Amino acid sequence: MESLKQAILERGKALSDQVLKVDAFLNHQIDPQLMIQVGQEFADRFKNDQITKILTIESSGIAPSFTTAVELDIPLVFARKKKSLTMSDNVFVSQVYSFTKKESNTITVSKNFIEEGDCVLIIDDFLANGQAALGLIDIVKQAQASVAGVGIVIEKSFQPGRKQIEELGYRVESLARIKSLDTGQISFIEEN
Amino acid sequence: MESLKQAILERGKALSDQVLKVDAFLNHQIDPQLMIQVGQEFADRFKNDQITKILTIESSGIAPSFTTAVELDIPLVFARKKKSLTMSDNVFVSQVYSFTKKESNTITVSKNFIEEGDCVLIIDDFLANGQAALGLIDIVKQAQASVAGVGIVIEKSFQPGRKQIEELGYRVESLARIKSLDTGQISFIEEN
Repeated sequence: MESLKQAILERGKALSDQVLKVDAFLNHQIDPQLMIQVGQEFADRFKNDQITKILTIESSGIAPSFTTAVELDIPLVFARKKKSLTMSDNVFVSQVYSFTKKESNTITVSKNFIEEGDCVLIIDDFLANGQAALGLIDIVKQAQASVAGVGIVIEKSFQPGRKQIEELGYRVESLARIKSLDTGQISFIEEN
Repeated sequence: MESLKQAILERGKALSDQVLKVDAFLNHQIDPQLMIQVGQEFADRFKNDQITKILTIESSGIAPSFTTAVELDIPLVFARKKKSLTMSDNVFVSQVYSFTKKESNTITVSKNFIEEGDCVLIIDDFLANGQAALGLIDIVKQAQASVAGVGIVIEKSFQPGRKQIEELGYRVESLARIKSLDTGQISFIEEN
């Protein structure tokens, strides 16, 4: 997606060979017009998949999921990293390990909002080691719903997330695929 | 805002005389069409205020802030409850005490995204004791920016948040004002 790559090059920053900072438009400040384009692109790629729900995880997944949900005219659900006070025990739970933070988080989704028969598109802002996406897939399976695929705004293709998800048989659609961040240079995997 | 009140009555639930659960459309599952209407309403109420930024707090404030930002065609920024890994030390910090959780959270906003001269609309999903809004106001003041007002999706008017913010001289616009949740009945303050 060209406008996204442009934003990454112009407004993103490689903090190391592993870490890309995009807090100017995606995960702290949000650029509404770019997010609308992201939603249109995801919706276009999954428009024939009879999606009934979008599932993401708080917080940075919410904006791109929201714009996709608007395009597909379906609800979105965001998994919580902490159980909220108004959440009952009627929840699906999964574990998400963060390699960067070296800690495991429990994520929860109410059983009221992902149900048997749902066809779920999982969306997240970043794909690195794939742990968040795998946790969300786990929750969809617990609900006996189906996973239409995983939509990622920015994939760090030098990390193993995509491979892990594809090996389980799921489709991954990433709008920008980062080949390398070495020496502060951001380069992309070019696709047709 | 009638469609919001309708959603609260039909899809919300008074869990006690203090706690309103609206996770079917606002803070777990999100109803995109309702959130677009919420954004249009906030934008309409603040359309003459030369707003340059919207500031909210993760996670449930993001969707209504996003739709307002689209309408006003300006960026939004969400304060983080935890400092993110890619955040430098170049941040504004404030403390937000949660009466319900009985804990204090540090909230942070990068100095890159709220600047002197900005005219900031603060938006949040709920107003109860006002601590989150007061923390966001504190950050805007630290940035030497101005606060155009505070936009709230659901105000629990039997709690002191509105009074506290108004006493500091700020405008509060709440789209639904809950008068009482006693005995499981949701009632509103009616306004013209």
